[in-house]
Amino acid sequence: MNVHGKPTRTIWPVEDGVEIIDQTALPHAFVTRRLSSVEEAARAIAGMQVRGAPLIGATAAYGLWLAARADPSDAALAAASAALLSTRPTAVNLRWALEMVTARLAPLPPAARAAAARAAADAIADDDVAMNRAIGDHTLPLVRAAGARRRDSAPIQILTHCNAGWLATVDRGTALAGVYAAHDAGVPLHVWVDETRPRNQGAALTAWELGQHGVPHTVIVDNAGGHLMQRGRVDLVIVGTDRTTAAGDVVNKIGTYLKALAARDSGIPFYVAAPSPSIDWSIADADAIPIEERAADEVATVSGADAAGAAVRVRVVAPGSPAANPGFDVTPARLVTGIITERGVAPASREGLARLYPERARR
Amino acid sequence: MNVHGKPTRTIWPVEDGVEIIDQTALPHAFVTRRLSSVEEAARAIAGMQVRGAPLIGATAAYGLWLAARADPSDAALAAASAALLSTRPTAVNLRWALEMVTARLAPLPPAARAAAARAAADAIADDDVAMNRAIGDHTLPLVRAAGARRRDSAPIQILTHCNAGWLATVDRGTALAGVYAAHDAGVPLHVWVDETRPRNQGAALTAWELGQHGVPHTVIVDNAGGHLMQRGRVDLVIVGTDRTTAAGDVVNKIGTYLKALAARDSGIPFYVAAPSPSIDWSIADADAIPIEERAADEVATVSGADAAGAAVRVRVVAPGSPAANPGFDVTPARLVTGIITERGVAPASREGLARLYPERARR
Repeated sequence: MNVHGKPTRTIWPVEDGVEIIDQTALPHAFVTRRLSSVEEAARAIAGMQVRGAPLIGATAAYGLWLAARADPSDAALAAASAALLSTRPTAVNLRWALEMVTARLAPLPPAARAAAARAAADAIADDDVAMNRAIGDHTLPLVRAAGARRRDSAPIQILTHCNAGWLATVDRGTALAGVYAAHDAGVPLHVWVDETRPRNQGAALTAWELGQHGVPHTVIVDNAGGHLMQRGRVDLVIVGTDRTTAAGDVVNKIGTYLKALAARDSGIPFYVAAPSPSIDWSIADADAIPIEERAADEVATVSGADAAGAAVRVRVVAPGSPAANPGFDVTPARLVTGIITERGVAPASREGLARLYPERARR
Repeated sequence: MNVHGKPTRTIWPVEDGVEIIDQTALPHAFVTRRLSSVEEAARAIAGMQVRGAPLIGATAAYGLWLAARADPSDAALAAASAALLSTRPTAVNLRWALEMVTARLAPLPPAARAAAARAAADAIADDDVAMNRAIGDHTLPLVRAAGARRRDSAPIQILTHCNAGWLATVDRGTALAGVYAAHDAGVPLHVWVDETRPRNQGAALTAWELGQHGVPHTVIVDNAGGHLMQRGRVDLVIVGTDRTTAAGDVVNKIGTYLKALAARDSGIPFYVAAPSPSIDWSIADADAIPIEERAADEVATVSGADAAGAAVRVRVVAPGSPAANPGFDVTPARLVTGIITERGVAPASREGLARLYPERARR
């Protein structure tokens, strides 16, 4: 999507490494960084300079390329893969990308591995963009349908949580792919953007990228969405996912579950945009998914820009009070209207997903 | 309750005015301020130096005393009352306190009004403390019952939203009155404290006052409560209310409704502590209650302390992105397990409340 009018991806290879947008500097500064080693790639993931399940997957793939360039031995690649995998335990795309690249490299002689890893990483990035375009195409009719249900001709009101936009992917986004598709097709819409504490990816990233693309939007605190739904001010909810089970239970940013409950209580469709690499066919029970417990400091403090525009971190919790920080929650399939994949929209159920992905579900 | 070990109310009269704790300076600094005029009282309410429905009511009552001291004429008191009433449109205690003091003063000669206003304000403050003690007594068995349902002997896990503690009242608190009663009775408990964006009254005030009193607690972002309830980590939810209708619908800080939905979904009791002045017997339809739309700046920025401890406000929303800020939401009676009043616990229904307050409900 555009940054200051110039088409930009979130990650792109250059001669001696891979470049990323440092998303921790957004929205107050647009900074790019070069990653030249697998250690730098792992740090970029762990430190959330890159975030969003699809982008994490692509970054991990390029990380293996950087590792293979330095040392293409089996041992070095296994260590690199383990280091990358340990950065974010919840994102299924991370494991998926590492396994895909590793499977490509294993049969090759070491000397051929760096080039193959680069090609595999490029393919993962390009495939992500293609999947997201398809998700956008499948979302567009759902947006139009939400508009058709309105009694007036006001813009269609879409609520989203966290950032499942192009910044969370290589390009286009998942939850926002349909927003961009609809906006570009001339469908009048407005997006309610959940702030998404503790890291404020909504207020910082979703608002920034929608603003860059000219999509009307308003930031709200995470507490406000239920009230807006109660009072008829939301037509449709679309969120992304870090991991969706084969049964249609959705692991996503903490707080997603609360919005799904509110949508159900007000009869508002609640859709999850889930490119197939984010579907975990191996997990039967969502309650068994480990939920990443992140640093308490993310809750105790808030990052922003001071009056002079400088990045500042302020403490918001009473001195001496502890904080807890579960990073994700599980939205049960019963609360999900549909799962939007690159192959179409499936009911949030084992049968629904299996119908779209028979070759995966049968495994 | 204690501040640095010294029993302290949130508002207390002194010879030439009334003193308050400036709650906008908490939790990073403990600052008291003297209010010497009704204008200063109105500014303290509007600027949320005092907040919480019961404390707003008491402050407004003392504000009328300050007004009567300066000019006890009918016209001056009417203007003072109007100015105080306009500060916070949602809090029903504000109107209640102003009407009570005004009714006392109206029949009196102007020269007698200042002393009568002072006596009325003192009575409102003392009555608030007595009501909160009674609410605490009625809450204690509910806390014990939640503990009895646990399968282990771990501390009882209570979740609360915003600040309905002693800082929201003259003393003791409403939602936290039972927490203090249980803690003081030796019942082991732990409180999950919702941060409560946009103004962070939970992270700043509830955490601070629980810490001052030695009650174990942990601050979480507003997004986290649903997940904790899903995973069996919450035994009981207790919140306060700014206004509860005669039918048991609860107006409280934005986000309360989402926690009520989550409690219902996980079968967790959801109680509302509502001293009777916060019950609005005149409103039939909660959807008709005007919801205060507060300044967008409260969403766009966050106040906290920098590394040196200085108060700093940082911008968290992308530059150029608008924000919306509804201050309250309505939790329908169907989601409320019970309403804890100073007369006991009522089912959240017209009949339930009328049984406890027949003299009010009949009006």
